[in-house]
Amino acid sequence: MIEKYLEISPEVKKALEEGKPVVALESTIISHGMPYPQNVETALNVEKVVRDNGAIPATIAIINGKLKAGLSEEEIEYLGKKGYSVMKVSRRDIPYVISKKIDGATTVAGTMIIAEMAGIKVFATGGIGGVHRNAQETFDISADLQELANTNVAVVCAGAKSILDLGLTLEYLETFGVPVIGYQTEELPAFYTRKSGFNVNFRLDTPEEIAEFLKAKWALNLKGGAVIANPIPEEYQMDYDTITKAIEDALKEAEKLGIKGKETTPFLLAKIKEITGGESLKSNIQLVYNNAKLAALIAKSL
Amino acid sequence: MIEKYLEISPEVKKALEEGKPVVALESTIISHGMPYPQNVETALNVEKVVRDNGAIPATIAIINGKLKAGLSEEEIEYLGKKGYSVMKVSRRDIPYVISKKIDGATTVAGTMIIAEMAGIKVFATGGIGGVHRNAQETFDISADLQELANTNVAVVCAGAKSILDLGLTLEYLETFGVPVIGYQTEELPAFYTRKSGFNVNFRLDTPEEIAEFLKAKWALNLKGGAVIANPIPEEYQMDYDTITKAIEDALKEAEKLGIKGKETTPFLLAKIKEITGGESLKSNIQLVYNNAKLAALIAKSL
Amino acid sequence: MIEKYLEISPEVKKALEEGKPVVALESTIISHGMPYPQNVETALNVEKVVRDNGAIPATIAIINGKLKAGLSEEEIEYLGKKGYSVMKVSRRDIPYVISKKIDGATTVAGTMIIAEMAGIKVFATGGIGGVHRNAQETFDISADLQELANTNVAVVCAGAKSILDLGLTLEYLETFGVPVIGYQTEELPAFYTRKSGFNVNFRLDTPEEIAEFLKAKWALNLKGGAVIANPIPEEYQMDYDTITKAIEDALKEAEKLGIKGKETTPFLLAKIKEITGGESLKSNIQLVYNNAKLAALIAKSL
Ligand SMILES: [Mn+2]
Ligand SMILES: [Mn+2]
Ligand SMILES: [Mn+2]
Repeated sequence: MIEKYLEISPEVKKALEEGKPVVALESTIISHGMPYPQNVETALNVEKVVRDNGAIPATIAIINGKLKAGLSEEEIEYLGKKGYSVMKVSRRDIPYVISKKIDGATTVAGTMIIAEMAGIKVFATGGIGGVHRNAQETFDISADLQELANTNVAVVCAGAKSILDLGLTLEYLETFGVPVIGYQTEELPAFYTRKSGFNVNFRLDTPEEIAEFLKAKWALNLKGGAVIANPIPEEYQMDYDTITKAIEDALKEAEKLGIKGKETTPFLLAKIKEITGGESLKSNIQLVYNNAKLAALIAKSL
Repeated sequence: MIEKYLEISPEVKKALEEGKPVVALESTIISHGMPYPQNVETALNVEKVVRDNGAIPATIAIINGKLKAGLSEEEIEYLGKKGYSVMKVSRRDIPYVISKKIDGATTVAGTMIIAEMAGIKVFATGGIGGVHRNAQETFDISADLQELANTNVAVVCAGAKSILDLGLTLEYLETFGVPVIGYQTEELPAFYTRKSGFNVNFRLDTPEEIAEFLKAKWALNLKGGAVIANPIPEEYQMDYDTITKAIEDALKEAEKLGIKGKETTPFLLAKIKEITGGESLKSNIQLVYNNAKLAALIAKSL
Repeated sequence: MIEKYLEISPEVKKALEEGKPVVALESTIISHGMPYPQNVETALNVEKVVRDNGAIPATIAIINGKLKAGLSEEEIEYLGKKGYSVMKVSRRDIPYVISKKIDGATTVAGTMIIAEMAGIKVFATGGIGGVHRNAQETFDISADLQELANTNVAVVCAGAKSILDLGLTLEYLETFGVPVIGYQTEELPAFYTRKSGFNVNFRLDTPEEIAEFLKAKWALNLKGGAVIANPIPEEYQMDYDTITKAIEDALKEAEKLGIKGKETTPFLLAKIKEITGGESLKSNIQLVYNNAKLAALIAKSL
């Protein structure tokens, strides 16, 4: 039944059949993450990083109502050009995009779902969604966290942006039994920075150890994914105080302007980019490359 | 094993075997929704609306410890006469009612569970439960929402009563990946009124489009249901300001009287009925008919 | 696959194969619950209580990376001597302990998981985790509650300690469809005391009735466990006002000292023990024996 809706590219299909390592990549970064043609360039570079580290990339998206695991260069170009007009797709949105035969850029949750359908175990992205600041009042909690609780895909990321409430995010993941592994670190990284002030659950220092962890988890049918938190390389990280102040200033301005709900995150991200003068985008790109590399190494060890 | 506990009426069984459209209906409205004999009359009318629109009704309840999908007129009469003495049954209560061999009137969650067991995909009701106002403090969140996240049944309703916190309810559903579809509307209806001030996730304008959405969802094993929000017909809706004021007054009185927890909802509903002079019950009945009709049309397209 | 990781003791294996009653027991109480050698003594006594009531005990732990259902006396001695150096293991921790080939003492959640893998349906412990006081702000909610929502094991306990917020714990369990049964009581017991001020969902007065309830639940594939709340025997219960005051004093002191997050629970428990002069430990041991007995009787009726 799923075959009717899911198209795995020939290269990815072959790799999966032969038991070769495959790494899923998301497409929200292509259509919503940065302007064209920088987005296409970055997407192709991420795929190259995966290949250079011995795995096959499978960029995930929905095109014309078909779930895609593995995009051609033309398809990446297509999504990159369409940009913001492509719908952002999380769990609840998938049936809509399919039944309307339209395009969709998959979030962390959306990508995990399609990766699992295709049989891909490791996924590299920038950062995961989480519990938003002030979620005690708003209940604004990303669907990514429930996906991590339920879907068997390891998500290699640079932690989560500290526009989220990282402490509450860790509590939520603990309640739902999702492990948070630090790669060569005891501290949860906060996307732009290697520091956050919060601890991960487990520090593991090699891709092999992470693969052993994942194999044990899934062999025991302990459903769900894992957060593999991979700190941004030191040379690309932003200054902790600068980024913290930028986020605080952005939060204050959002409050002053009465910005609420769904508008908050895009506002904060734009504001931070403005405050940090584009440095944040550069860091963002580099941390994705770094995650693609680690994901490839983990996939090879699985 | 389930056969030992589940009794599907001959008519419903035949319809399911022949792939004919079936619509599940709940029984809390019979025993707890209004006085006898109006409740029995209404229940039979709802069934008639389903039939008039080309589907077979399957009213769901528990009688003498047996799960029932499809009630006879005698059984509806029996539940209607017993009224409030019938236990209201959600997920956690089902094993109790079975092991004690007693009767149960199923809530939205309870009805979804039995509908899924019987193989029924579409269910018409009045409104769903949700996140209660002040749930930030009380954690009072209806089990209906988890059922929507987990059980493969589409729930056609007129939204949710605004004695609930509709904004928090939408956030909760988003976190758990439950789609909220507006039938011919972009705005979430609020039971007695067509307006709420909140948007649905997707507007779909025909039963066929809704059926296509559901088919895609379940074909992909994207577990869980969907909220099909169907606004009350204009001629029966209550005045937005009147109902809003009635709810606010009722909330204030509840606070003044120190009414808390489980007592709050029945108190508010009784108070609103009192304030609106019975007009609310009339609206309630009409919106259920309206939902039964849409549910039949969706079931026919599935 | 699971066989590679799970070792069921010969006695437990034989009992399961022959359909004889088995009761799971947790190991956190051994390594983290009290000092050596009292912990070993207690663990062996609990096993004896299970046997004396006609069932086979299966103490659950992880030793050297192997999941164990049924420990030898030597293994209990080993865990008891190692004490606090044994890692406390909940759902998210299991793959870590396995892949590192280390030891783990299982919490309620961890024990439920391994019991279910082994095919054991009833588990006796002291108290379950829950929603922590002030979780509205901290989101500190024990993973035990999600395990109860998802894993098919009945947990016989003396309720939950009132250092938790028992009202919020009941709301959370209700949302996730977990039944809370009171054994011969309508009131939820609060570990050290038979009273809490909160009601259970259902009162059942015999092990047979509880077994009938569980059989109905699982026959219908209503996934998840149940809380079987068994009040501490009257002769061992602590004075309600004394324990309430001790908890309030401990909470105040924690706040004054700025103790937060993970440090709170151990601090509170140590403080309460200090305030109550060791009487609380004695009560703790007696209520575990009492739960082991009821669990054996339920297992015999299943
Ligand atoms: Mn959100
Ligand atoms: Mn409630
Ligand atoms: Mn906690």
